[in-house]
Amino acid sequence: MSPALEEVVARIRPPDERVAQQTARLLDAKTKPPGSLGRLEDLAIRLAAIRGEVPTGELRPVIVVAAADHGVAIDGVSPYPQEVTGQMLANFAAGGAAVSVLARQAGARLVVVDAGVVAPPAADGVRSGVVDGIRGTGNIAVGPAMAPVVGRRMVERGAALANELVDDGFGILAVGDMGIGNTTAASALCAAVLPADPLRTCGPGTGLDEAGVAHKVQVVRRALAANGLDGGSVDPIDTLASVGGLEIAFLTGVILGASSRRVPVLLDGFVTGAAALVARAIAPVVAGSLIAATRSPEPGHVLVLERLGLEPLLDLRLRLGEGSGAALALPLVRAAVAIVTEMATFEAAGVSRA
Amino acid sequence: MSPALEEVVARIRPPDERVAQQTARLLDAKTKPPGSLGRLEDLAIRLAAIRGEVPTGELRPVIVVAAADHGVAIDGVSPYPQEVTGQMLANFAAGGAAVSVLARQAGARLVVVDAGVVAPPAADGVRSGVVDGIRGTGNIAVGPAMAPVVGRRMVERGAALANELVDDGFGILAVGDMGIGNTTAASALCAAVLPADPLRTCGPGTGLDEAGVAHKVQVVRRALAANGLDGGSVDPIDTLASVGGLEIAFLTGVILGASSRRVPVLLDGFVTGAAALVARAIAPVVAGSLIAATRSPEPGHVLVLERLGLEPLLDLRLRLGEGSGAALALPLVRAAVAIVTEMATFEAAGVSRA
Repeated sequence: MSPALEEVVARIRPPDERVAQQTARLLDAKTKPPGSLGRLEDLAIRLAAIRGEVPTGELRPVIVVAAADHGVAIDGVSPYPQEVTGQMLANFAAGGAAVSVLARQAGARLVVVDAGVVAPPAADGVRSGVVDGIRGTGNIAVGPAMAPVVGRRMVERGAALANELVDDGFGILAVGDMGIGNTTAASALCAAVLPADPLRTCGPGTGLDEAGVAHKVQVVRRALAANGLDGGSVDPIDTLASVGGLEIAFLTGVILGASSRRVPVLLDGFVTGAAALVARAIAPVVAGSLIAATRSPEPGHVLVLERLGLEPLLDLRLRLGEGSGAALALPLVRAAVAIVTEMATFEAAGVSRA
Repeated sequence: MSPALEEVVARIRPPDERVAQQTARLLDAKTKPPGSLGRLEDLAIRLAAIRGEVPTGELRPVIVVAAADHGVAIDGVSPYPQEVTGQMLANFAAGGAAVSVLARQAGARLVVVDAGVVAPPAADGVRSGVVDGIRGTGNIAVGPAMAPVVGRRMVERGAALANELVDDGFGILAVGDMGIGNTTAASALCAAVLPADPLRTCGPGTGLDEAGVAHKVQVVRRALAANGLDGGSVDPIDTLASVGGLEIAFLTGVILGASSRRVPVLLDGFVTGAAALVARAIAPVVAGSLIAATRSPEPGHVLVLERLGLEPLLDLRLRLGEGSGAALALPLVRAAVAIVTEMATFEAAGVSRA
């Protein structure tokens, strides 16, 4: 039984400033010049403030990768055929995809969700996030991706999964996406929600050339016009349903759900950023729970990060998605917690201060 | 018995371009759009080319942190008293320092070297790198840090340790430094070797204010003048002995030694960068074996990275040294190897290509 969206939103709290200050003081007592661990200290402080308590041990990490298909794929916005979404879902579950490898490296549990893949694989280890048997969205270039009620239910399904994972003891939730065509949906969503001209939100995704990007811009313009969004967005759920995607809606719910439980959310690249942008439009306070793992080369990501007030931990020019960037940032999260819990103080180590 | 410097230098080879191409082809067969893992793919290719073979399993990591004292500390170039160098050596060995914690997190062995600390601790787990009982350098502001013959022997001691660690099976060597006053020595070394005006190589180190940095610039100017280096540097070993440090000389040797064994060297921040700059002045080909972990906020680091042709993996505004940045980058090294060794190919996973 999924929680109602309103209940989830009502539970979200901003980071605890008192805990932030307490953590900063603890770090200043450690054997290092104050602030000399730079952004690692900022990260430790932010994690503690989101959790509402100074960490005393590891935050167990989980990566949720949600996949779904996009009707707009028919418009030639990706060099890959739609069947790849389902094939990659099987690859995630079998452990051969980038995020599978990187999740293992990071010691993170990987939860693979079918949020509406047209041709789902017969693979073990894939959880269903499908609502009402809906597999794949409508082509946003000609009409809505899904009905608003479906958008809302996908968000609630995502929040329910986050609740379940928090109940299972996970202390940080990373998110990842898969879906042929989904950077087009994310670009349309950002154009509507920010709002911004599609020229500024469309990029090469996983491999378009210049002509391909120009075509993508046109497709996004048609999507905004077809869905009455060329003047910007009013209701975030309606906008999500109009030009978003099933996996994006699901991940929006994961983000809101984790935040409602004071569990930090580690964003991946552009598509999860778009999901976070929608989450923020639904509940502005959610931004305080977010950590950006990577800076995507997609131009729209810069705008998303600016709106969310986030500076990514890594800048590795990743264009893959899947949660691969989030997985690569997890060791920094672990390290940030460890400097709080394991480093010696000046007093304990008998080291002189400045 | 340390190898002679000339023997070490003679063994250094450039990265193997054929292996680089072979690794790039392997990565293109993996289930991801070509190049979509960005700098992680570049890193995998570079590691393979340095090693001279496509990796088939993990590169076992070790971090060498070398500490020594600096006569110039008497000139007030650090907010910390000199006794902190020895105290931190004990803290490294006891496991309470930042690099101790971060090495554990990264699954790396930490080798702690006393390269000439004035007041060495009675601590287990500290290796001696001391030559002829020399503990601490002369004040570079008034004369040479050490005799050229000592500089050369410290480099050879470092190379001997690298050889030993490679013989023990370590596949990547990370380097770190500790020494109150050592960013002043590193700034002087960079000013002489690049060459560059001390205004461009001096920064706040672990915590100087603006007046402190201005004073440091004056101290470095005096050091260059006192050592006949205000016109730039001729012989790198002489320069290292004149304005460097014992730990910097030792680390220069570690870098050369690892490189001579085709083992990649992971640099930390500014001080290890200065050691690499000297290593490059001794043997230009060594630059091909280096990987930069972090971008330091020290202004001189930009110049060092440019000269070495390196783009750091991380930019976390770390000012600590110790190898803390290198430890934080080790999970990326591990991940880069894992995508080569563990990811499925399109064929094996039955995923359609573009």
